[in-house]
Amino acid sequence: MAGNTLGGLFRITTWGESHGEAVGVVIDGAPAGIPFTEGHVQAWLDRRKPGKGKTSTSRKEPDQAKILSGTFDGKTTGTPVSIMVANKDARSSSYADIMDLYRPGHGDITYDAKYGIRDYRGGGRASARETVGRVAAAALAHEILNAAGISVRAATVELGGVRAQARDYASMAENPYLCPDAEAAEAMDARVDEVRRQGDSLGGVVEIIADGVPAGLGEPVFEKLDAALAGALMGIGAVKGVEIGDGFEAARLTGSENNDPITPEGFASNHAGGVLAGISSGAPLVMRVGVKPIPSITREQATINTKGEPATIRTRGRHDVAAIPRVNVVCEAMVALVLVDHFLRQRAVAWNR
Amino acid sequence: MAGNTLGGLFRITTWGESHGEAVGVVIDGAPAGIPFTEGHVQAWLDRRKPGKGKTSTSRKEPDQAKILSGTFDGKTTGTPVSIMVANKDARSSSYADIMDLYRPGHGDITYDAKYGIRDYRGGGRASARETVGRVAAAALAHEILNAAGISVRAATVELGGVRAQARDYASMAENPYLCPDAEAAEAMDARVDEVRRQGDSLGGVVEIIADGVPAGLGEPVFEKLDAALAGALMGIGAVKGVEIGDGFEAARLTGSENNDPITPEGFASNHAGGVLAGISSGAPLVMRVGVKPIPSITREQATINTKGEPATIRTRGRHDVAAIPRVNVVCEAMVALVLVDHFLRQRAVAWNR
Amino acid sequence: MAGNTLGGLFRITTWGESHGEAVGVVIDGAPAGIPFTEGHVQAWLDRRKPGKGKTSTSRKEPDQAKILSGTFDGKTTGTPVSIMVANKDARSSSYADIMDLYRPGHGDITYDAKYGIRDYRGGGRASARETVGRVAAAALAHEILNAAGISVRAATVELGGVRAQARDYASMAENPYLCPDAEAAEAMDARVDEVRRQGDSLGGVVEIIADGVPAGLGEPVFEKLDAALAGALMGIGAVKGVEIGDGFEAARLTGSENNDPITPEGFASNHAGGVLAGISSGAPLVMRVGVKPIPSITREQATINTKGEPATIRTRGRHDVAAIPRVNVVCEAMVALVLVDHFLRQRAVAWNR
Amino acid sequence: MAGNTLGGLFRITTWGESHGEAVGVVIDGAPAGIPFTEGHVQAWLDRRKPGKGKTSTSRKEPDQAKILSGTFDGKTTGTPVSIMVANKDARSSSYADIMDLYRPGHGDITYDAKYGIRDYRGGGRASARETVGRVAAAALAHEILNAAGISVRAATVELGGVRAQARDYASMAENPYLCPDAEAAEAMDARVDEVRRQGDSLGGVVEIIADGVPAGLGEPVFEKLDAALAGALMGIGAVKGVEIGDGFEAARLTGSENNDPITPEGFASNHAGGVLAGISSGAPLVMRVGVKPIPSITREQATINTKGEPATIRTRGRHDVAAIPRVNVVCEAMVALVLVDHFLRQRAVAWNR
Repeated sequence: MAGNTLGGLFRITTWGESHGEAVGVVIDGAPAGIPFTEGHVQAWLDRRKPGKGKTSTSRKEPDQAKILSGTFDGKTTGTPVSIMVANKDARSSSYADIMDLYRPGHGDITYDAKYGIRDYRGGGRASARETVGRVAAAALAHEILNAAGISVRAATVELGGVRAQARDYASMAENPYLCPDAEAAEAMDARVDEVRRQGDSLGGVVEIIADGVPAGLGEPVFEKLDAALAGALMGIGAVKGVEIGDGFEAARLTGSENNDPITPEGFASNHAGGVLAGISSGAPLVMRVGVKPIPSITREQATINTKGEPATIRTRGRHDVAAIPRVNVVCEAMVALVLVDHFLRQRAVAWNR
Repeated sequence: MAGNTLGGLFRITTWGESHGEAVGVVIDGAPAGIPFTEGHVQAWLDRRKPGKGKTSTSRKEPDQAKILSGTFDGKTTGTPVSIMVANKDARSSSYADIMDLYRPGHGDITYDAKYGIRDYRGGGRASARETVGRVAAAALAHEILNAAGISVRAATVELGGVRAQARDYASMAENPYLCPDAEAAEAMDARVDEVRRQGDSLGGVVEIIADGVPAGLGEPVFEKLDAALAGALMGIGAVKGVEIGDGFEAARLTGSENNDPITPEGFASNHAGGVLAGISSGAPLVMRVGVKPIPSITREQATINTKGEPATIRTRGRHDVAAIPRVNVVCEAMVALVLVDHFLRQRAVAWNR
Repeated sequence: MAGNTLGGLFRITTWGESHGEAVGVVIDGAPAGIPFTEGHVQAWLDRRKPGKGKTSTSRKEPDQAKILSGTFDGKTTGTPVSIMVANKDARSSSYADIMDLYRPGHGDITYDAKYGIRDYRGGGRASARETVGRVAAAALAHEILNAAGISVRAATVELGGVRAQARDYASMAENPYLCPDAEAAEAMDARVDEVRRQGDSLGGVVEIIADGVPAGLGEPVFEKLDAALAGALMGIGAVKGVEIGDGFEAARLTGSENNDPITPEGFASNHAGGVLAGISSGAPLVMRVGVKPIPSITREQATINTKGEPATIRTRGRHDVAAIPRVNVVCEAMVALVLVDHFLRQRAVAWNR
Repeated sequence: MAGNTLGGLFRITTWGESHGEAVGVVIDGAPAGIPFTEGHVQAWLDRRKPGKGKTSTSRKEPDQAKILSGTFDGKTTGTPVSIMVANKDARSSSYADIMDLYRPGHGDITYDAKYGIRDYRGGGRASARETVGRVAAAALAHEILNAAGISVRAATVELGGVRAQARDYASMAENPYLCPDAEAAEAMDARVDEVRRQGDSLGGVVEIIADGVPAGLGEPVFEKLDAALAGALMGIGAVKGVEIGDGFEAARLTGSENNDPITPEGFASNHAGGVLAGISSGAPLVMRVGVKPIPSITREQATINTKGEPATIRTRGRHDVAAIPRVNVVCEAMVALVLVDHFLRQRAVAWNR
């Protein structure tokens, strides 16, 4: 229990269910004097909004962020920053017909097992809606990172089995999948149409890169930078795998192939993905996450009801065909939250330098 | 800083460098009354000892564990359990010739960047020797888990590109790679000989399975069971990727393929790997880690010295050809440490049931 | 930084300034199935409301609590409980004339030193208004404690130098000072009138007693029950001293006088105040806190302005003559929050009993 | 459980029982480059050694500190510093005659209640011997604080009812009680002789002052500097009361008397004891702790045995007449540990200044 807080010095606590009054976050440990307004939050929330791109639900949430504390005259004061976003469009009714059925691939059955209580309305805390709080908090993290010259971006490098070959980041915004390969994006589009017709869903792979990360971040041996990033990214609902640098491919290389030669100008390659022994090396951080297909599909599936009797289910409600690209901004958020925490911690490590 | 502690209720703190006086661990939060002696620790330490199997170094450490506190009459008392293992065979001399050179793929350059101080003797905290403390602590974790009917085992499912097809766990002990596929083990053997001749090293993939894990473990949304496991496993020096269940393969499936149907007898499949929404489902936990090749190789590599001047390096010292299979017991240790912590936490969650 | 969270398993995070939009709290780790509604919160908030008793400010806040998450059908679900209370009656204007002056005895000068930013409106986070979040969270803590047969009550045993001799708790509600000695309450009344005429303020002593606390709570050696209670109570703005049992008087006794003899029926006395070696003994917990006089007074005081120039100040605004009795419910809240956390932690300690 | 760790950035974990193999501590988060050797530790351990002064036990422990990790060439490396002190003179035999009896005023009965197991040898974790680890860790804390111009000293201001009037710190070392009033020290001496003859024990009051503490330390609202100090000091076995500044006396003052006027040269008085709103003000920190009499006395006391039957007990073993002055260095240690942690945390708060 008490697992809703992330971070050591820059610490966030999220709250709220998909069909409750609101969702939100409290940010504790934000340094004072950082320019931060509802406009900053809104810009990030708009990126995770549904209704953008062909993969996403028709559920419409204005997602208007309200800052309730921690700022004065448009700047942080060092006290907790509380941000709330009301749940406007929560139709519990549409869930009435499945209130006694466990949804395959969903957390309702495990939440029951854990807490001994059933909140059948949507996904509750397990809903992607919970990430509103994470993204809102990351809006502040990004402001601090930017001031330190650190930037984070996530790109869709695979969707429904279609892989991006190019890394043309400039073109990402021109397709609905945030894919850095225009050609691959078109193939993804065809795959999405096909699967939507089948009432099914898709997964994919997101690549996150952080530029400008100084060498020295990370706290061995249990809070290594890569360990913290892996935990944060695996903590995103749809994520089932995490890689740093070459990841699983590194397992197929020899030491002479995988070691990054060191030159007076820096590392000659970046198989390590910017982390050595759990500490940032100064090279760009490179991570990939494997995103599972959305479990809510309209095709009939075998399940049981809360009495344990066999049943079948067709999810109605409103759901995305793929978590991508909405999950991309959440990946950026988790990376930003880990980086800002470790950035501040390094200030204490290097106190006398 | 202060990243050497893992866990909430069952909390361990490891200490010690590869070439210092000793390495050790303090276990805080172990319930009282658990039978625990130096024999229990020794059995696990012997499994991670070097000199076993053809992949490993010739460095010989007796690794004799000494329990300094926390037990009375062969049982835990509820107070901190301090375990120490002396470093007997630390030949700093063999590192003298590389004391001014950064080793590619190693943490010495990032430790320098972080702490501003250079301890050139072996890997210091970044050495695999640090895992002695983790494995010793896990010996106690395993005792608690076993009492609860939970078991953890790690198997080598890939080495140097050779994949195990079978999962014949009974045969694992019969080959030096802890591979559950005798045929694959022979091919691994050939690959290891080849690479050793080339003065190079290998990586691979380890699969960890936990049986008997009750449903309900894990603390959403930031201390989900899979997030905690991913962080713990990525915190192992050689690990660059972590998967739960089908992992990255799940990204290529559709929802109807990836969802595990629910039946009165339980889940009809286990693509999820025993975790839904970050909470254990009652199905076996299935994880895989990608292990990079050992960075220390005898082949010449390009690097720089501490003055930043170009140089070449050939690691002498004594090093393994592959972290596998010695890393397998460390994987089991990390999983056991996470599970026992969440098992105890669930006692509080379900206090009134 | 990041000091706005209290507790390990039952963890609260408060947020909000006295003159911001709202104040609130997020409770993480509340077990599921606890009956909890806005009515429960309101009952406790009403006890700390201003405008009750002659010592308190005329500032009127409806203090209407809103539960935004974590409950369903009137019961907790195990997810974070977010509670918000709007700030309705915040007249920043009345602070305009002191916006450049540091107030003696106040935190505005230290907040400046720490955060490098000045929010001159009221006390900000240092205002007693922040305790709304603590009291709201304690409303849930009390529900859990009551279910376990544990109760907490605070009594005013000294005010403005007038000491209560009796402990007639039944009569407490009959005087405006929550004093268990009717006679002393009248003398307190006279003292309050006198000091109010002088434009000055008063301090006093509050005694908190917890009944029904089982033996075994507390986590030596740094999270002992008395250490946790002392830290929590000293963390209340106006508190400058904390005692357990006989406290400072114990320093004047001999061992034979101070030791509580043990009998088959229990302890023959309770000099220890219910704690031995940091663990509850089963006897009632007895604590006392020394409460300083309210620093905001209308009498002229010497100070400096933000430029460091000498100045004089008369606090206008609206302020209490004494923190007592409003602080009493806050004392109960802090004790309840510590007890529920340790109560849940003990479930894990005793997992196998 | 898991309560044996103190601190956030500078974090210590102590281990060991009074009659086990050894006692020790692991310090995590010590900045790199701090000169630190066994000599530094020994100097502090020698101050808490028994056999100094007439109040203390005849138990003789060489208390030889051994640093097992975390330093290289006499300086800290940033990795965990593990320090061990062997228990040489542990005569469990002398406890044989009380192995079935609970000792009044001792923790053996509450440890039993908590852990369900009885370690009758001496005080186990509840013994003052556990403080060896705290003092050893504080030796490093003091090195860091001194480098920052911060010093901490504890003085005996009351013993057995005899109060020190003077604060002549120069004379402290000249009497066996570390009392800053030579005349009072003589009266204390007489009182100690008298009580020792009676087979009884004494308590007293220790005043701790920290000079050079910069303004800005402390993390409102739950990790305020005074709250952290109160928790740390109350966590010392013999302490039953803690005051900051005027403490309980402040409860008898009016606001105009208690407020410290602010002048261009600083505060005109220090009733607050150097803390306002939980943040250091730049004035000296002033704390007092009430120390109870040693519970182990040779006079006969009523108790019960482990079967719950009435019995009488006379503690033999070897025990002090008063925890003072040995506890004084422990008070200094706890204050130093809290200050260094908050000093490092403030580096992160003020990262952009």
